[in-house]
Amino acid sequence: MPNGKTNYLVGVDLGGTKILAGIFTPGLECVGQMKLSTKPERGPEKVIERVARAVREAVDECDLNLDQVRGIGIGAPGAVNVPDGTVLFAPNLDWKNIQLKKILEKDLDVPVFVENDCKMNALGVYHAELAGKPRSMIGVFLGTGIGAGIFIDGRPYVGFNGTAGEIGHMVIDIDGPECGCGNTGCFEALASRRAIFRTIQTAVKKGQQTLLTEMLGQELTDLRSGDLRKAIRRGDRFVERVIEQAAEYTGIAVGNLINLFNPEVIVLGGGIIEQLEHEMLPIIDKVARKHALSGTANGIEIMATRLGDNAGITGGAVLASRSLPA
Amino acid sequence: MPNGKTNYLVGVDLGGTKILAGIFTPGLECVGQMKLSTKPERGPEKVIERVARAVREAVDECDLNLDQVRGIGIGAPGAVNVPDGTVLFAPNLDWKNIQLKKILEKDLDVPVFVENDCKMNALGVYHAELAGKPRSMIGVFLGTGIGAGIFIDGRPYVGFNGTAGEIGHMVIDIDGPECGCGNTGCFEALASRRAIFRTIQTAVKKGQQTLLTEMLGQELTDLRSGDLRKAIRRGDRFVERVIEQAAEYTGIAVGNLINLFNPEVIVLGGGIIEQLEHEMLPIIDKVARKHALSGTANGIEIMATRLGDNAGITGGAVLASRSLPA
Repeated sequence: MPNGKTNYLVGVDLGGTKILAGIFTPGLECVGQMKLSTKPERGPEKVIERVARAVREAVDECDLNLDQVRGIGIGAPGAVNVPDGTVLFAPNLDWKNIQLKKILEKDLDVPVFVENDCKMNALGVYHAELAGKPRSMIGVFLGTGIGAGIFIDGRPYVGFNGTAGEIGHMVIDIDGPECGCGNTGCFEALASRRAIFRTIQTAVKKGQQTLLTEMLGQELTDLRSGDLRKAIRRGDRFVERVIEQAAEYTGIAVGNLINLFNPEVIVLGGGIIEQLEHEMLPIIDKVARKHALSGTANGIEIMATRLGDNAGITGGAVLASRSLPA
Repeated sequence: MPNGKTNYLVGVDLGGTKILAGIFTPGLECVGQMKLSTKPERGPEKVIERVARAVREAVDECDLNLDQVRGIGIGAPGAVNVPDGTVLFAPNLDWKNIQLKKILEKDLDVPVFVENDCKMNALGVYHAELAGKPRSMIGVFLGTGIGAGIFIDGRPYVGFNGTAGEIGHMVIDIDGPECGCGNTGCFEALASRRAIFRTIQTAVKKGQQTLLTEMLGQELTDLRSGDLRKAIRRGDRFVERVIEQAAEYTGIAVGNLINLFNPEVIVLGGGIIEQLEHEMLPIIDKVARKHALSGTANGIEIMATRLGDNAGITGGAVLASRSLPA
């Protein structure tokens, strides 16, 4: 029944902590959302049930039903086999070879498309926020981990094995801290939420004073990126210094991207940037331009996404829209 | 007079030390060469006269004359404005804004095309050695400095300002040595010929024993990459360790390229690799694959170019051939 009402798109951002589902019009306007916690400890089957529930609830919130949804685009935090929609490896979910597309399609009877979360974020930024205008763009997303999505000549660039953009594992400080990948000095080991929190927790254990312990207790239970912003704005010089350091590392990484890719636009996003853009972006911009070889950064824009937490679900809607037959 | 004899192409590799000109058939077979020293201290005009002389001598060596040359492709060690053939900045020549194309065309009356030397090397490797087969390729060239040429979807990728591939200024060790660019820990400051020679000379000044001083005297006058190979093969553990270290840095840089670009093929070249491939390539390969995120290096080839010193002139012939009307 091809009328306007069957044209809704759903974007799902499946993270290690929460599942966010959004309902979008064909013009990529978000008309409703639903958030559920992920609860990865319950295992993949239960998590996928929760994804389906979040989609159903979001659809219901908008007074729609699933028949009116053309497709679902979902981003997973890890390596994805795009053609068959399998999540190959997602450490934050403790998933290996999970047939996310197949299981969700069986449950919801709607076409499902799966992509790496950072590539999906970049898709949202490139098409919905920048209207596909830059010839080349790299979206860099700082959250629990760090990843990127690359656009070259107006198209996603994924490389030989489909894995291009693993910027979190670019080494920028050989003698730096250990990374989860087994190497040392990766960008992710220096500037991700996990790295920032570890730096703070280690310092607190060694006696560092900070407003964060007043706010959250000595164990810093349930520390979030937003707490860092609050502490800085209340004058916590220690937290400010930690965030400045993370911004400097990010600036070096962005400088490397300018030297290597020379993209027209570099967009920063993810939870860390959403909460700390004001504190970090000026430093990132300055350090990146200092590290870009003379002249190479001319006219290149370094910006933070305005989509915030919605970059992922927006990208999911774009993914579904572009994957479905016209 | 469009017969077979008017179809020769000339490639010129203009370096800080030498000018190499090669004569190529339309099928990219090299039929003759001429080498002159550059003598940059005499100034740009004299250097360009020497380039013209090298071309004339090479043409004469092949019993040809300039009327039989369709075009000349020339690589310069620095930033180039490709459309107008100006060398914007070439520190090893001490050049700024030199109209290389215009001056040479006036002198030789043959169409001239100018490109950055590393991009031209990569052009030679991609088209002449690999027959344009890989979808994506990065050529990394280790000489006095370090640069790269990138191919994506079968075409050179140059980015927004035409400067993509400045891999020499990718920071891989924030706390590393100072680089000529003003930053610290750039790949070029760790693994270029200049960096390797500086490491050796500094150690010798501090009393390090090495066969190199037996070979060349305490001042290491006229030290060349080939001397390092000779010293290693005669059992010099110090030089071996310096080269291993440079190979490890190069492996980390190549690992970063796999994580970021995920190219089908990475080709190494330049004077350092030509002389020390046997010593360095196994280490580069191993370290790169260790730093590539699990699975991302599958099927990716890491190799040294077989074109050796001729990569540049071959690329010059390719550049001329592709820039001329068919």
